Amino acid sequence: MRILIKNVWILTMDSVYKNGYLIIEDKTILSLGDMKQCPDVQVDRVIDGQGGLLMPGMINTHTQAGMIPFRSLGDDIPDRLTRFLFPLESQAMTAELAYHSTKVAIAEMQLAGITTFYDMYYFKESVAQATAEMNSRAILAETVLEDGCDSDEKFSGLKIAEEFIKKWSHHSLITQAIAPHTPDTKSTESLKEAVNLSTQYGVPLSIHLSEMMFEIEKYAQEYQQTPVEYLEAIDFLSNKLLAAYLIFVKDEDLDILAKYNVSVAHCIGANTKSAKGVAPLQQMMDKGLKVGLGTDGPSSGNTLDLFTQMKLLANFHKTYTHNRSAFPSREIVRLATFGGAEALGMEKLVGSLEIGKKADITLIKTDSINMFPIHDPYAAIVYSANAANVCEV
Amino acid sequence: MRILIKNVWILTMDSVYKNGYLIIEDKTILSLGDMKQCPDVQVDRVIDGQGGLLMPGMINTHTQAGMIPFRSLGDDIPDRLTRFLFPLESQAMTAELAYHSTKVAIAEMQLAGITTFYDMYYFKESVAQATAEMNSRAILAETVLEDGCDSDEKFSGLKIAEEFIKKWSHHSLITQAIAPHTPDTKSTESLKEAVNLSTQYGVPLSIHLSEMMFEIEKYAQEYQQTPVEYLEAIDFLSNKLLAAYLIFVKDEDLDILAKYNVSVAHCIGANTKSAKGVAPLQQMMDKGLKVGLGTDGPSSGNTLDLFTQMKLLANFHKTYTHNRSAFPSREIVRLATFGGAEALGMEKLVGSLEIGKKADITLIKTDSINMFPIHDPYAAIVYSANAANVCEV
Repeated sequence: MRILIKNVWILTMDSVYKNGYLIIEDKTILSLGDMKQCPDVQVDRVIDGQGGLLMPGMINTHTQAGMIPFRSLGDDIPDRLTRFLFPLESQAMTAELAYHSTKVAIAEMQLAGITTFYDMYYFKESVAQATAEMNSRAILAETVLEDGCDSDEKFSGLKIAEEFIKKWSHHSLITQAIAPHTPDTKSTESLKEAVNLSTQYGVPLSIHLSEMMFEIEKYAQEYQQTPVEYLEAIDFLSNKLLAAYLIFVKDEDLDILAKYNVSVAHCIGANTKSAKGVAPLQQMMDKGLKVGLGTDGPSSGNTLDLFTQMKLLANFHKTYTHNRSAFPSREIVRLATFGGAEALGMEKLVGSLEIGKKADITLIKTDSINMFPIHDPYAAIVYSANAANVCEV
Repeated sequence: MRILIKNVWILTMDSVYKNGYLIIEDKTILSLGDMKQCPDVQVDRVIDGQGGLLMPGMINTHTQAGMIPFRSLGDDIPDRLTRFLFPLESQAMTAELAYHSTKVAIAEMQLAGITTFYDMYYFKESVAQATAEMNSRAILAETVLEDGCDSDEKFSGLKIAEEFIKKWSHHSLITQAIAPHTPDTKSTESLKEAVNLSTQYGVPLSIHLSEMMFEIEKYAQEYQQTPVEYLEAIDFLSNKLLAAYLIFVKDEDLDILAKYNVSVAHCIGANTKSAKGVAPLQQMMDKGLKVGLGTDGPSSGNTLDLFTQMKLLANFHKTYTHNRSAFPSREIVRLATFGGAEALGMEKLVGSLEIGKKADITLIKTDSINMFPIHDPYAAIVYSANAANVCEV
């Protein structure tokens, strides 16, 4: 199966072709470049991009796809996680609901140009089933918590994760993973056991880290450490770890994370909607940390598209650094694509348009009035576009 | 002409009907309420809202509709106003371009649910022609600058404004206004003359105020005053004035503005994209200032919809006040509608759904995947929706 896409801007993440072509063969990028160099080969399908923007499929490095049913519930209320969401999950979340919710969430992500996501939720068997049926690339991490909502047993996530890893390890699009909810799972043993499983099966780890002020205060009181220092001390840190948030981090924390080559899921929308704060993105990047963007779950960040995140990222980090030129749009689009791929260790597979890479590709149409005119395609993506401008993945 | 809208949530801005109806007669709201109370009257057209959200048409209190041609140009570059935009306007902007640009901008606004806008640009004859043809409600202010781009004469805006006011004063949808660009127009006389015209013809005034740090420093050096104190001293302040931005204001500035009942156009998107800062919205409201939301121009805020602004407002002001409950979604939707109407002195005409008010109404459809589910319609508008979810105005 060979597909030719023509009459498009091509943003490879390395260069731009204003009138470009791209040929896909069997889900892989066979050739791309300026239309004038388009080879005269037979194709099975031609897509006329009509002047649209062809870019790598976007990568959502952190979400909870199963939480669709709770979107728009108690958004402005303090302590909603413990007051509403944990009790609701405990009473209402089922394998069936997680399955349907994940399908809805993936549909929303695909419609918004996202082709890979990193999920951190429960009922991983249902989530994987939904992901396979929706044909999305994903890392699916079973959450480990003292009281997870998919079992009555304590820390059952460890056992569920192991079964899940064994059963799904051969799926071509799905990577299995383990995600202790936060450092504060009330059991150091469960964190160590998560690392053991990760090492034993060679699967990724994820965790919510340095998200809340009370988390910082608790570790200062109990251990005279930051949560990052605590995780280093128990040998939790490695290049298999993706840490979400990192709002309250010291410079030394970032040095530690860089030493172990830990990756970061930056979720500016959820972090600022909940008034927690702005993670020090510039410093993370200065330290060489690999950073991708995350929508967070549908009841935290509400929209599952990276357009919302890119716009918030631009405005927050320009304002926080008092520098209009900080995070130019090209850099922000890179974070939403190649940056995410690097953070997920998938940079050889996806995240840019290169010959031999997987054809995870997003086409943004430019015929909507909000996209006019386009002097700079990156600026149009970051400052003008919304999820509805995506026409194909 | 009588229109019945049914099967909708109705957000009047005072109360909510989950299954409501609304009847329009001759562009005026005739009746509204719970579907069970819907009167059995003959209508010419029935609109089935299919569970959508019916709300007052949104009000964009500050834009430059004529600047569409410059969108996505030099967004991340410092000093773009003086380096690019002023020279480009001087060389390339014409009456014809302003006419077409304004039509495009109004189309974008209407598609995004905005029914009233306050424009501050040049070539007001062209802008008014476009606005009349597009059937939008608007306040159109001719900009007064030493070197305006619609004439070679110094401060020609004053003369152009007066001609414009005389010619268009009887249009039912268009209000004429005058807008000195900033306090720093290099002539106190031109500011005083603008006030005189405003008084003589009873038309509104607008100005960009306390936007730049160098503006604050300049007035401190030259007058030992803030720009607000300077404007008070030259008798510029009144309830006819809408001040855009107000980023760098002292508490005493806000007291002065409140004393004269000056209104505010809050443009969080443009202010933060340009790294200028976050205007003290909570303090403005605490002082009783009337505040509406503004997109700013297409090359400053880029999108001409208030969904982008509402989302940025929520996240910025919650984060700046360290309070997740600050600016709950209901309050933000109120700012985008009734707040804007109050800021423009149009609160008896538009801004809420009430019997006798103009039928400036927006219908947001809820069948797109990003709008599911709706536990709280205000939260869905602020946190979930984008401009593409609007289906009718």
